[in-house]
Amino acid sequence: MASKIDLNCDMGESFGRYSLGSDAEIVRYVTSANIACGFHAGDPLVMSATVALAAAAGVSIGAHPGYPDLQGFGRRNMELSPAEVEALVLYQVGALAGFARAAGVELVHVKPHGALYNQAAKDRSLAKAIARGVARFSRKLILVGLAGSRLVDAAIDAGLPTASEGFADRAYNPDGSLRPRSLPGAVYADPAAAAAQAVSLAQQGIPITAGSQTHYVPVDTLCIHGDTPGAAAFARAVRAALEEAGIEVRGLAQV
Amino acid sequence: MASKIDLNCDMGESFGRYSLGSDAEIVRYVTSANIACGFHAGDPLVMSATVALAAAAGVSIGAHPGYPDLQGFGRRNMELSPAEVEALVLYQVGALAGFARAAGVELVHVKPHGALYNQAAKDRSLAKAIARGVARFSRKLILVGLAGSRLVDAAIDAGLPTASEGFADRAYNPDGSLRPRSLPGAVYADPAAAAAQAVSLAQQGIPITAGSQTHYVPVDTLCIHGDTPGAAAFARAVRAALEEAGIEVRGLAQV
Amino acid sequence: MASKIDLNCDMGESFGRYSLGSDAEIVRYVTSANIACGFHAGDPLVMSATVALAAAAGVSIGAHPGYPDLQGFGRRNMELSPAEVEALVLYQVGALAGFARAAGVELVHVKPHGALYNQAAKDRSLAKAIARGVARFSRKLILVGLAGSRLVDAAIDAGLPTASEGFADRAYNPDGSLRPRSLPGAVYADPAAAAAQAVSLAQQGIPITAGSQTHYVPVDTLCIHGDTPGAAAFARAVRAALEEAGIEVRGLAQV
Amino acid sequence: MASKIDLNCDMGESFGRYSLGSDAEIVRYVTSANIACGFHAGDPLVMSATVALAAAAGVSIGAHPGYPDLQGFGRRNMELSPAEVEALVLYQVGALAGFARAAGVELVHVKPHGALYNQAAKDRSLAKAIARGVARFSRKLILVGLAGSRLVDAAIDAGLPTASEGFADRAYNPDGSLRPRSLPGAVYADPAAAAAQAVSLAQQGIPITAGSQTHYVPVDTLCIHGDTPGAAAFARAVRAALEEAGIEVRGLAQV
Repeated sequence: MASKIDLNCDMGESFGRYSLGSDAEIVRYVTSANIACGFHAGDPLVMSATVALAAAAGVSIGAHPGYPDLQGFGRRNMELSPAEVEALVLYQVGALAGFARAAGVELVHVKPHGALYNQAAKDRSLAKAIARGVARFSRKLILVGLAGSRLVDAAIDAGLPTASEGFADRAYNPDGSLRPRSLPGAVYADPAAAAAQAVSLAQQGIPITAGSQTHYVPVDTLCIHGDTPGAAAFARAVRAALEEAGIEVRGLAQV
Repeated sequence: MASKIDLNCDMGESFGRYSLGSDAEIVRYVTSANIACGFHAGDPLVMSATVALAAAAGVSIGAHPGYPDLQGFGRRNMELSPAEVEALVLYQVGALAGFARAAGVELVHVKPHGALYNQAAKDRSLAKAIARGVARFSRKLILVGLAGSRLVDAAIDAGLPTASEGFADRAYNPDGSLRPRSLPGAVYADPAAAAAQAVSLAQQGIPITAGSQTHYVPVDTLCIHGDTPGAAAFARAVRAALEEAGIEVRGLAQV
Repeated sequence: MASKIDLNCDMGESFGRYSLGSDAEIVRYVTSANIACGFHAGDPLVMSATVALAAAAGVSIGAHPGYPDLQGFGRRNMELSPAEVEALVLYQVGALAGFARAAGVELVHVKPHGALYNQAAKDRSLAKAIARGVARFSRKLILVGLAGSRLVDAAIDAGLPTASEGFADRAYNPDGSLRPRSLPGAVYADPAAAAAQAVSLAQQGIPITAGSQTHYVPVDTLCIHGDTPGAAAFARAVRAALEEAGIEVRGLAQV
Repeated sequence: MASKIDLNCDMGESFGRYSLGSDAEIVRYVTSANIACGFHAGDPLVMSATVALAAAAGVSIGAHPGYPDLQGFGRRNMELSPAEVEALVLYQVGALAGFARAAGVELVHVKPHGALYNQAAKDRSLAKAIARGVARFSRKLILVGLAGSRLVDAAIDAGLPTASEGFADRAYNPDGSLRPRSLPGAVYADPAAAAAQAVSLAQQGIPITAGSQTHYVPVDTLCIHGDTPGAAAFARAVRAALEEAGIEVRGLAQV
């Protein structure tokens, strides 16, 4: 039974004149901030302010690198060479680390964004490229990936600490994969349902059922979505439920 | 009489399919590389390769941040707020520092590019913003500016080590400013002329004449242009002339 | 006494994941839409949808070209060569005209955006470059500029129809210039104040006072800001006041 | 036996400070120019100059739209929604058409670039999206696609005139597909080999062999690569061989 878990949220996804998310509210409920690095979202001013916000709240800081696709918000699949991916991860991690250093805080983790995260869950070569990009910067950075994914495997192979991510507000298939967003019921509308699943993921992990057998994939961190309406209500509900269940909510470095 | 000088050159200014400069040749003659950071030129793959090239050649590595203006190659004046400039300098320095760290070498200096460099030579507020961006990353980084410029003043005020730059292949006005490129004779076509001026700048500095009085502004580093035809011939001529004159050519950290 | 006036509003300034403005509401009150063309804001999907929205509402369509500066929302001054400006205006006008053509509507006007508009109000060479860019596409396009500005002069010199713009919600200086936003009282917070000024601008124009003399610069179109909180309330108030005063509110082609 | 053929070449693929291709030379040998539209390459100034160059040479002008991926030169596969593709094609066609109109010449054709072209050769939904984007601008534009591809099918379905493209300097597989560039012999190094294949493609088409049967897919236009070393020599050799064989080389509108 896990007695501790991390809550992470994507932050700093505004850009210039464009505002997105409710970082100032969400930061009160999470323990890790994945901060956009200027490729799929974010700009230098936004990064500076977001690092300061997270640091002031005592929230762990991570880089949230994405594809160079602001228009698609990094959610459109792209086919880049492994060398390109490795270099763009290293670039974005370095850029964010500069702001962390300026703020006097440590960079703790790296979580790829959107299509980069999703493609790397299944594509071994892409996953390895991401891991190399992170490892070239530092072997102390925790690489966050979908629980049970190629990305987690690649992180382990590269000698990186890793964290397996679960989703409180998403339905899982019996094989442990996420129910596609296109299907009904894929995303929970009710904060209470998300809160209940958060507790179960923290305590047991993701259930994988094959025939009559069920085993559980442990989860180190739960993703809180920050750019949806009612995001803060979900975050509050999840956090409260975890604490009520006696689960310690703390940053990845302490999990 | 200066007995040592640094030779610096802008490098890594290719982008994707587009090649620019003759870095592999020039790197043999210089002691410092100002590496583009992806805003006015350069991309993560180019940065990775250029850092490796410079490191292998034993050349000091510096960040070469510019305006976010790839189409204008960072040469078009822009009016950004001081906060924007501070943040974009910190961003680019961090990004380049990541590649340096990955290559096991130190980041030694920062030299702003193009319009950012030129505007900061005269604009105190802009110069201070650049210096703050660099200082937030590290107070050990050497900030390179036009000799006698506001940027050098701002670096000193910010407690940064600084290096004053001169140009071997550009004519100077009697007041020590550079003769505008639009005027005839502003840029030397003859490598021998550049070589001679390099020696004189290293030994005496830039002459400033007021009335019958001349004093000299010392120069710590000479800029070698890398993206012009015949750039390598200039670099070779300048380097040879300096060594013949008994001037030690070495990186900024050693000047 | 003017008996008719146009009401224009910037539209289509969303980008990818980022939403801005309340176009669907504002479009009910205005007679001309200045549609962003993908440089300072807007993307092809947004442009397509915005042209369809304006066409369905019977609102005249214009191109709203800006500097290539998404991060600065086209509001940061840039120094581009006249040839660059001419070409970027022609590019953006052509792109928007393609969507208008696809929707079966005419492109009626061009209004530069942000820093391009403001710099062209004072800079004759820039204003002429914009006018050339428009004229190369068509001499029937109406070029909208600040009343009394260089841009209006340049449009006339280039043989273009032109429209002089006034601002209902901005205070004017005695010399007819806009009171800078940095000063108190520069922007009216009260829709009623904007509505009253709209009527006065439509009926009399902008008062220019020199000594004891006052003359009036006529205004053909009034700008309604769409991206501020309460924008729709302002638009509704201005429209209602104009109609109550017996001023016909109609598109530029009919003014 | 075909007695006429078009020769097309990608042009205007420079960007800002970056030069690519030898347009001024190549334009003498081809009859159609596919001009980059600012997404994968090209910028407004380059487009203006390239349209002028092609118009002066009497070469037909076409739009060459690509993915919004300057760094990847539009050669990296992306997964965009059909609506996004339709809109980005319409955008780029409109932008280029503006320059053509300004130069007093007709826009004759559209040829997608790089990954957009290659993915559309196989992906029916993507091909249809491109065809819709073109058709929304004009049903008179000729859509150029790989001979035998989904893109040609989609153009026909959309009621567009279409042109089937062959490659003089690329080896074909027995099934009519192009031999992948990764395999030896995929690209001819010898201009004479390209010239011979050009004549055979023009006269017979692409041979498709199944068992003992061979049939031929006709070719309306041949692609001349402009950004490779020796491109002009290939273009000259191909053009000369076609004329020697009595094949008329002329623009797509006349083929």
